[in-house]
Amino acid sequence: MMSQTASSGTRRPIVGTIIGDPCGIGPEVVVKSWLSGVAHEVSTPVLIGSAEVIERALKLSGSAIKTRKLESASEATGSRDAIEVIDDIPFDVADIQIGTTVTACGYASGKWIEHAENLVKNGGLAAMVIGPIDTTAMKQAGVINTLTPMIPGKTCLFLASGPLRIAHVTDHISLREVCDVISAEIIQASVKILADSLERCGIPNPRIGVAGLNPHAQGREDREQIAPGVNQARALGINVEGPLSPDAVFRQCIEGKYDAVLAMYHDQGHIAIKTWGFAGNCVIVLGKPYPYLSVAHGVAHDIAGQGVADFSMMQNAMVTAGWMAAGRGFPPL
Amino acid sequence: MMSQTASSGTRRPIVGTIIGDPCGIGPEVVVKSWLSGVAHEVSTPVLIGSAEVIERALKLSGSAIKTRKLESASEATGSRDAIEVIDDIPFDVADIQIGTTVTACGYASGKWIEHAENLVKNGGLAAMVIGPIDTTAMKQAGVINTLTPMIPGKTCLFLASGPLRIAHVTDHISLREVCDVISAEIIQASVKILADSLERCGIPNPRIGVAGLNPHAQGREDREQIAPGVNQARALGINVEGPLSPDAVFRQCIEGKYDAVLAMYHDQGHIAIKTWGFAGNCVIVLGKPYPYLSVAHGVAHDIAGQGVADFSMMQNAMVTAGWMAAGRGFPPL
Repeated sequence: MMSQTASSGTRRPIVGTIIGDPCGIGPEVVVKSWLSGVAHEVSTPVLIGSAEVIERALKLSGSAIKTRKLESASEATGSRDAIEVIDDIPFDVADIQIGTTVTACGYASGKWIEHAENLVKNGGLAAMVIGPIDTTAMKQAGVINTLTPMIPGKTCLFLASGPLRIAHVTDHISLREVCDVISAEIIQASVKILADSLERCGIPNPRIGVAGLNPHAQGREDREQIAPGVNQARALGINVEGPLSPDAVFRQCIEGKYDAVLAMYHDQGHIAIKTWGFAGNCVIVLGKPYPYLSVAHGVAHDIAGQGVADFSMMQNAMVTAGWMAAGRGFPPL
Repeated sequence: MMSQTASSGTRRPIVGTIIGDPCGIGPEVVVKSWLSGVAHEVSTPVLIGSAEVIERALKLSGSAIKTRKLESASEATGSRDAIEVIDDIPFDVADIQIGTTVTACGYASGKWIEHAENLVKNGGLAAMVIGPIDTTAMKQAGVINTLTPMIPGKTCLFLASGPLRIAHVTDHISLREVCDVISAEIIQASVKILADSLERCGIPNPRIGVAGLNPHAQGREDREQIAPGVNQARALGINVEGPLSPDAVFRQCIEGKYDAVLAMYHDQGHIAIKTWGFAGNCVIVLGKPYPYLSVAHGVAHDIAGQGVADFSMMQNAMVTAGWMAAGRGFPPL
């Protein structure tokens, strides 16, 4: 169903972007990204959130464009004459205090995310992108669970920066925990998630390099957990190698030997991609049958509402979602 | 004494380079590096090893240059007319089997290293560089202990690639061991070694960034060991910050915020430098009062004796040793 309504035929895939927390830079960077027009080149962009908040951001940007509320995602035209918005969640702009953590705004962010995900599941949207949110406000509002948690073997944080593409088996856990969590089962499941995700977004039979855990991939976990996990994944028909020396595999990916690397822990992948070049990063969560993206930065309360926030990461997230949903892979740098 | 004989006044510092294992690519890459003349621009290069082995490598390279044996390092002239060699250890070229691990060659390598280090300690040389060696042969010969071991808090492996300069608190140990080994005392000692080494080679009051251990430097070891160690080092007057987010600090170093980063474990630093750009790396051991360098690659038995080995890393090590010994810091990329 999804492919027939949101992403099939000659129509561009409909990508829904949540505007993020109204007290932060979310609405302004989302609106500026929309106005740049680059998302329209690959997708039919719609925004999810309060039309009134979007109009304020438009005014801040000096644009004369207006918003147009959609009854359903299928009404989206991809026109650049008006910002097409799905505004189905009640929200009172009087609650907004720019630069502050406001529970009501955290609540709205969570509800917009939930609504967008329902629309993707129902086939109204082909992909979703989450603008910068205030997780403190979302926790206060009791809606933090609308964000997809990172669970080893179930979901993978994925970063892409040109040819360097990295999925992470574990996320924000200590190095000690990483050593205990890594198992053959989780490695196999993570390789499969990564391979399926790459296939779905247009990279057939992807070549995956799995990083080891210890120096030169020559430790106990490398032999006893990672190697068997890689072998099990290969038995499923996946084109995968590893465990590979962690200090070499990311450079090999940049040079084209692999389509993506599976990293064992947060810093293993993040050091590689951020040292190589930070610009353009967006955050992709793998483990769902549709593209699910967000931005690497937060709400930047200190500069919110001034119209000075850099919108390049937001723009890159919207463009990347369009490429993935259209089965075009990932945009070049 | 050292500075008066080897590195003072208008004379360029005398840098001794050990030719490496005669069965591998060592002699040929050392000779080609010497012939390129770049080491002469910053230093007075002398080689340590068998003059006969060097002459064979010269023949292989097609050069008409000859060798000249020195009675002592102080006779070195820096002339490019002949390769000046300190050849004080008996070695029989009949023992050489190119492309093979030979115990006698491992023994000679160890003795050359030991002799070079004595010459540095006695002030005859200002710095030493170890050409590619065969550690298996050295172990068989019982001379592996002529190489300086990496001991947390005593010695640091240091890599430099242009503005990205990284010292490692630990080397080839598992991630599990890293978590246990890191202590405030070791952090403080490592920061001091790094600061002293940078000062000595010409970077006054160096700015040092200390990486954390866990994601965003927000784990138990970051709070309980690294932070106190950094504070103790700062109390010594060192310009040091940390623990810093490991996924950000290397990029900050590239952008000039720090003169060097102290990394907690092998892959933390190696992933950063090798992903950013591998070319030109040489290996520097900090913790001695003189520059002690080697190359990141091995003897490459598969291509030894063919004259095809890339000598750029060897050349970079010799040049870097010259810069460090002359108090000029590190060469640009």
